[in-house]
This record gives sequence, C-alpha cells and structure tokens, in this order.
Amino acid sequence: MVDWQRLSVGERTLLERLFWAGGLSRGELAQSVDFSKSKANLAIASLIGRGLIEDSGTQPSSGGRRPELLRLSHGMGVLVGIDIGATSLDVALLAPDMTVLDHHAEPADVRAGPVPVFGRVRDLLRAALARCGVAPERVLGIGVGVPGPVAFDSGMLVNPPLLPGWESFSIRDCLGEEYRAPVFVDNDVNVMALGTHWRLRGRLQNFLVIKIGTGIGCGVICHGTVYRGADGSAGDVGHICVDPQGPLCHCGNAGCVEAMAAGPAIARMAEAAALAGDSPRLKDLLDRNGSLSPVDLGNASRAGDAAANAIVQQAGGQVGRMLAAVVNFFNPSHIFIGGGVANIGPLLLASIRQSVYRRSLALSTRHLDIQYVPQVDSAGVIGSAVLALQETMLAGGRA
Amino acid sequence: MVDWQRLSVGERTLLERLFWAGGLSRGELAQSVDFSKSKANLAIASLIGRGLIEDSGTQPSSGGRRPELLRLSHGMGVLVGIDIGATSLDVALLAPDMTVLDHHAEPADVRAGPVPVFGRVRDLLRAALARCGVAPERVLGIGVGVPGPVAFDSGMLVNPPLLPGWESFSIRDCLGEEYRAPVFVDNDVNVMALGTHWRLRGRLQNFLVIKIGTGIGCGVICHGTVYRGADGSAGDVGHICVDPQGPLCHCGNAGCVEAMAAGPAIARMAEAAALAGDSPRLKDLLDRNGSLSPVDLGNASRAGDAAANAIVQQAGGQVGRMLAAVVNFFNPSHIFIGGGVANIGPLLLASIRQSVYRRSLALSTRHLDIQYVPQVDSAGVIGSAVLALQETMLAGGRA
Repeated sequence: MVDWQRLSVGERTLLERLFWAGGLSRGELAQSVDFSKSKANLAIASLIGRGLIEDSGTQPSSGGRRPELLRLSHGMGVLVGIDIGATSLDVALLAPDMTVLDHHAEPADVRAGPVPVFGRVRDLLRAALARCGVAPERVLGIGVGVPGPVAFDSGMLVNPPLLPGWESFSIRDCLGEEYRAPVFVDNDVNVMALGTHWRLRGRLQNFLVIKIGTGIGCGVICHGTVYRGADGSAGDVGHICVDPQGPLCHCGNAGCVEAMAAGPAIARMAEAAALAGDSPRLKDLLDRNGSLSPVDLGNASRAGDAAANAIVQQAGGQVGRMLAAVVNFFNPSHIFIGGGVANIGPLLLASIRQSVYRRSLALSTRHLDIQYVPQVDSAGVIGSAVLALQETMLAGGRA
Repeated sequence: MVDWQRLSVGERTLLERLFWAGGLSRGELAQSVDFSKSKANLAIASLIGRGLIEDSGTQPSSGGRRPELLRLSHGMGVLVGIDIGATSLDVALLAPDMTVLDHHAEPADVRAGPVPVFGRVRDLLRAALARCGVAPERVLGIGVGVPGPVAFDSGMLVNPPLLPGWESFSIRDCLGEEYRAPVFVDNDVNVMALGTHWRLRGRLQNFLVIKIGTGIGCGVICHGTVYRGADGSAGDVGHICVDPQGPLCHCGNAGCVEAMAAGPAIARMAEAAALAGDSPRLKDLLDRNGSLSPVDLGNASRAGDAAANAIVQQAGGQVGRMLAAVVNFFNPSHIFIGGGVANIGPLLLASIRQSVYRRSLALSTRHLDIQYVPQVDSAGVIGSAVLALQETMLAGGRA
C-alpha cells in the first residue's frame, strides 16, 4: 500500500496536479504548480523513487528534443470503479492515471436489494482482478456510485426512493470484508460531476452537471471540488418549484420540476398527446406497445412530430426555469446536461438554453455555457475511480 | 509593511487560525491546527519575533495557572474598514484582531456620484489616522463595501442600479493615490457574510446571509470562504422567480422575489391596503405623511394591525419560496436574514421559516437554522476590515 502520509506538501501538490492534468512534461509540471525547476526536479525524483510517478513515453514536439511525459505510476496499484444504475451494474479496474484496465457491464435490478447486487459485484471484482493478474492487496481505493442520496461521511444511503431496502446496508462494510482499501460511496450525479471535472483536466472551478432521468439531480463543483452541502443533500434540484399552480409531486408539494419535466412526466405527456389525437405517430406506437417512453417521444421529435416537439419544448422550458434560479444564485461558468432524457434530442437543449437566458440576469449568463455532458465510454466507472483516488489521497494526507 | 511572503506554511496556518479564532492560548492554538507542541512553539516564537502576534493578557482559568492568550499584534499596523450605504458612510480603523480603534459614521448620498463621496472618505480617513496617531504607511489593507454588484478582481462596480455614475470610477485608484496598502472592494452583502463568518469564529463552513432592503441579495459562504461565482454575480437572488403570474419587475421578467417582497413592494402593498380601507392605522399615517415605508408597516404589524400582518406574511412567504429553491440546491447549515426590512419584526422571520420548511426537502432542512443576522455595532466596517486583512494575507502569500 502507498503511504500517502509520508509525502511532503510539495510532493503531494505535484502528484495531485499530475493526476488532474494527465501527462505533463517535467517543465510543464513545474510551471503548472509554480515551483522552481530545481525544487520540482527534487520532488519528481523522490516521487519516481517511491514508485508513484513514471515516464509514460514521449509526445510529438514542434521541434527540438521530445520531452518525456510523466504520469501516475501504473505500478502503484489499481483503482476499482463501481457504477450502480437503476437497471445496470458496471465494475471496472483502472490504473492511477485512469486508464481502464478491465470493464464489465451487465443488466441488474437494484430493487432485488443490496445483498444479491453486491454479491454479484464481489464476484465480478474477483474475476476482474484475476483476469488482470492483480492481487487484492494492490487495490488502492474503491469508488461506488449509486442512484440515490448518500450521507457521504458514512457512505450510507439516506431514504433512497428508487432503492428500497438499501438504507441499512453498508456498502463499505460489505466490500471491506474482502479488501483493505478504503471504500467511498456517492450518488450518481456527484460521481458524474467528478468524472466530468477530471475529463476537463480540473480546468473549470465552478460548474454544474444536471442529470435528467427518472428524477432530476445536480452535481455541484464549487472552488474546484465536489460540493455536498451541510447534510450531503446539495444539488437536490428536482423538487425546486417551477409553477405554484403545477401538478402535485410525490413529495407532497405542487409544481416541482421533477413532476413536470423528468422521464415519467414526459412519458405521461406523450401518452396524453397520443390519446388526444395530437400525434398519429405517437398514437400508433401507444396502441402497439401499450405505453410510451421518453425514447419514443425523442424519436417522434427528431422525426419532426409537432406534438412531440411541443412536449420537449415544454419540458426543456421547465428545466430552464429551475436552472435560471440556480444560475442567479450560483453563477456557474458551465452547465452540462446528462442522464437518459438528455438523449431526447437537440431540441431539449435549445429549449433549456432559451429558458435560462430569458430568466437569468445578464451578468450571470454573460459567459455561461450550457451543453450536453460529453459522451464518453466508461464515464460512470471513471467518475467512481476518480472519487476513490482523490479521497484515498486526501484521507491519507488528513490522518 | 508586513512581508507576508516570508512566512512559512506553518506560520501562516497559525496566523490565520489565530485571526479566525480570536484569542487562544498556546496550547489551544497548537491543538486547533493539529501541530505538535514543539512545532507550534517554534512557529509562535518566530511570529512573536516578527511582531505579528503578541500576548493579550490572561483568561480566567478553572484552576491552576492562567494561560496567556495570543492575538494578532496591534503593532503590526491598522486595517481600514469602509462601508458605503445608499444613504450613509462609515469609515473605521481597526487593529489586526478587529478591535475597533476609531469609527465615524455620517449620512451621505451616493447618488451625488463617487467623486464627492470618496473625497469625503479620504478626509475622514486622514482625520481618523491623525486622531489615533497612526502614520499612513502603517495601513495594512483597506476594505470597502458598496451597495451594488462588483467585479471582485478589478474592484470595479458593474451596472450598479442604485449607483449611477459609479461604474467607471476606480475606488482602488482613488485610495491608491494616498495609500500604498492594497484596496479590496466587494458588494455589501458579501461583506456582511464575511463579517458574520468572522464573528462566528469561522466555525460554519456553508451558510447564507440574505439582505432584504431596496433589493434582495445573498452572500454565500461555501467551503469556509466567500463564493463569488464565475462572473462575481453569485448570490443575485433578487430576480429568482417565485410566481410566473406575478407582477412585472424592472429587470423585464415577471414575479421576481425582489418585485414582490423587497422594501418598495412592501411599501406599495401597505399603501394599497391603506387606500382600500383595510387598515385605519395605515390610512391615517398615509394621510399624514403622503407615503408609507416598510418601517411604518413594521410598526403597524407589531401593534397587531391585521392588514399589516397579512402583508408581512405574504412578503415572508415569497422570500421563503425563493429560499426553498436555494436550500434544495445548496443545503446550507444556516441562513441569516439582515437588511433594513429585517427590522420589520418577528413575524417576517416566522413567515420565511414556515415557507422554507414547507417547500424544501426534509433532508435539506433537517438541521437548517434560519435566524436574523446578530445585531452588532460596527458590523459593516468589521466585515470590510476582515476582507482587507484576509485578502492582504492571501495576496501576500500568492505573489
């Protein structure tokens, strides 16, 4: 195991910088942390000596000799990234520089409860380590993303609406029976925000990731780190009211954005439009399948169906109303929209943008950039592994 | 001048801790930053040797010998705290531990423009330094709070609605002609939040200060520091929509909380109630004075006038709707309500609380505490001086 506590402040600064920036030459690394060349070289030599960083090869140069790129050493150990979805399960092994060494995905039903799901996770993890020839002692840290609210310090789920039976289950204890590495659990949208933060090389200090699926949630990056709030519930934007006269939400209040623009609301509006005769295409689909999904609506919208487009615009408008309030308060530089409903097509993004820009203050939106989350393979497990590495390093330094 | 750059990381940590915690004994200080006794004693001796900290006397002890309390040294120099209100002007000198050495307040009209206002500020500052026998070179830093949006990095006001003519005026340059010390400018509610943060000894990491006056603004303390957002406009909550069917705001949108619950809206509702015959007391006042103010309404409400109480409850309900959205997103531990309208009486706070708790998620409000900003003498200038000292130290360490 790596003894993070034995690192000096300078060594830790270099190591963290290298993790966030990806491959850097010695000169770039020294410059990026504002160290003198001699101070940086001393710390780099020490980190290489401890097996924490290594040369990863060379990069194309505009002329002159090619500088060698440094990276976090693959010899240090592996990270485990686990991503639990409502209907899926991903387990991956990653190198400390987030190279994916092994990634297995399969369908799963979280409603079966945590015991069978994590029994399967443990089987898959054992198999992955065997495939890669990695001993369990070489796991540095384990990160787990789950589709529900988490008390981050304890790693326990709190009143998870999609995960009945998970509240009293300790993911940390379950994995701790088999691995000495620390285990960190967070909700899926915080993990998505952290993965996005890492893919963007840590360049953005204050931004939001919105996930629109069965519910609507938000991951908050503030001052360059995940912001979880006083009780760990920061980003719970699904129950922000966008219309006091709106429909009743399952939370008991009226006009929550989740009740008006998340997947189930969109499907309901699609079915209502079909039954009202507003869209022969949707009516046909409804007759054939007995129900409509956000995917059906997205297909109709992309095919130019007017009723479908009106529904997408209405949902985007409501999400935009919620975001306008958040933008006035938080003034982020970027908002990234993700989750299943984001696949509904470009009209959703256009409607969200229009609504935010109309309702937010000019100063807050002067440089605001709203776009879809970049689609990347293994995004979920990378986010979980970033969580694992970052928290393992931090925890090692704190103790 | 203090050369902040020559401090070691350990010395800076101790100095900042001592600033936030107020008087601490050597043992308490060492413990609070998790230093060994010998490491702490070495750094303390060095800081005393440099004239940055000193013994401030003794505290009552439960028994045994009385430990001496350390504080930031009064010999280090003075901080200048300036607080510009819409109709007032405060200039103060403070010791590095925020002891007020001199405080002068007088009425002022910011609409007269920045040149006469800051001409007067310079006169008052010169007089204060003379009264205290302090040479201008001994000013460590100058903090200025202004009632309008500020681009913090440049210290310039941005589209200030209450301050026409101030946009192209550099407060920094104006004071820089006479003082070598760095000048920091921020909006009044950020300064209020920072002052509250200091008075609470830096114990709360994530909280909000709401100012309800002519407008409605919010200071955000996040991860223990003031959060200003990507463009410096974080906390601009006055234009969050609380009712899509609400009245038109001067910003062009409908139903902004500022248009429904700030001072002018409250005065308007009071006048309407008087004219409609709902309150003989308010009608009488209106006939005598030609107009009604939030203070008049507050007096009527405290005297039990039913129409006045209904208006206070309505305004509090709208502020609470806005805060419910912010609470769901930000999950603060505390919200402090300040500003002129906060003086309207306890019913306002009760109405805000009721509305927030009804509309926010249970997890976000489990430990949420909503109260009025503690009334403290010299709060504005202390906030400005905290800004000055904190930023001077940080800037000294950054360079």
